[in-house]
Amino acid sequence: MNTYSSKLVENAVNELSKLPGIGRKTALRLALYLLNEEKTEAQQLADALIKMRNDVNFCKICQNISDNEICNICSNPKRDPSVICVVEDIRDVMAIENTSQYKGLYHVLGGIISPMDGIGPGDLTINKLIERLNGNEVNEIILALSATIEGDTTNFYIYKKIKGFEVIVSSIARGVSVGDELEYADEVTLGRSIINRLPYENSMNR
Amino acid sequence: MNTYSSKLVENAVNELSKLPGIGRKTALRLALYLLNEEKTEAQQLADALIKMRNDVNFCKICQNISDNEICNICSNPKRDPSVICVVEDIRDVMAIENTSQYKGLYHVLGGIISPMDGIGPGDLTINKLIERLNGNEVNEIILALSATIEGDTTNFYIYKKIKGFEVIVSSIARGVSVGDELEYADEVTLGRSIINRLPYENSMNR
Repeated sequence: MNTYSSKLVENAVNELSKLPGIGRKTALRLALYLLNEEKTEAQQLADALIKMRNDVNFCKICQNISDNEICNICSNPKRDPSVICVVEDIRDVMAIENTSQYKGLYHVLGGIISPMDGIGPGDLTINKLIERLNGNEVNEIILALSATIEGDTTNFYIYKKIKGFEVIVSSIARGVSVGDELEYADEVTLGRSIINRLPYENSMNR
Repeated sequence: MNTYSSKLVENAVNELSKLPGIGRKTALRLALYLLNEEKTEAQQLADALIKMRNDVNFCKICQNISDNEICNICSNPKRDPSVICVVEDIRDVMAIENTSQYKGLYHVLGGIISPMDGIGPGDLTINKLIERLNGNEVNEIILALSATIEGDTTNFYIYKKIKGFEVIVSSIARGVSVGDELEYADEVTLGRSIINRLPYENSMNR
């Protein structure tokens, strides 16, 4: 006998459990929640998902998600177009925006090079980044990818591709997190933070 | 400025984060996943949710979810209609069915009495359980609710309501889990398992 007493519920559980991090037990909990709520709840959720998937645009310049052809950041005249910060996905854009420390533009790669997941350079928007260097007056590219092997590989790949252009290529600082005690920092991070030490006057402003 | 660069994505995140156990960060991860997948993926998910919510029935007898008016279990002539197992929700039906140890019928309460969550006896299907006792030849009610204060309260409420009927009211055994070492069992469970000890011949079959 079927474990689920309803094909409709089973189907919903199947679809929900395709989502990342959602197993079948969680999916069933979500399905039961929707069954207990008003019908409008499920309808609104479904509408929001379909509308998002069908109508969202990717900014023609930086590949950030946007409701328009050009995103709010690229179309903002107050942002500095001579600096481009390269990030993995839009969550990183949001994270950096939340710091209020950056006034340049972004370039969203849409992932990082990861042979294990079958993601190669061709799956990313690296060519579009190079197009941006060709046309415009870009002075600096800031590589802001995760401090992982995949991030470092992607950084190096992009570095090789753009080193022919007249731009400064920088990478975000790696070091001991603000608020962390030294004895708990891992050796690699601590080592890097010693090698990349700053003049004290500079470090105060960070 | 808006943290989300797209209203459509923000809307989807808002709807997803209404689901239990899904915070805004997880909701954004799910939304980005759907954006990266084919459009059919979001469409299928949305369709499955709406179809489930609009078309699913609750069995007229036991309140289990079902695609028909009467669920598979209630309509199965091989099941014993003289025993009713009272459970909190359909996940418990599935859990008990998976044991293959029970051949009676169920009654799904749709929750347990929990003043903290604003759930009183009137929100549960207790009256429908009593209707079932009125008409039919039920010999035993098995209370199979969670071993929590709320579960015990609900057990007691139901017990008081049905003690006028000529039925045996039993409760599932509480004791040391199969495979557990005694020294790690909590005191209350271990205490109950001593008080409710069984003749050794009976315990062997469990």
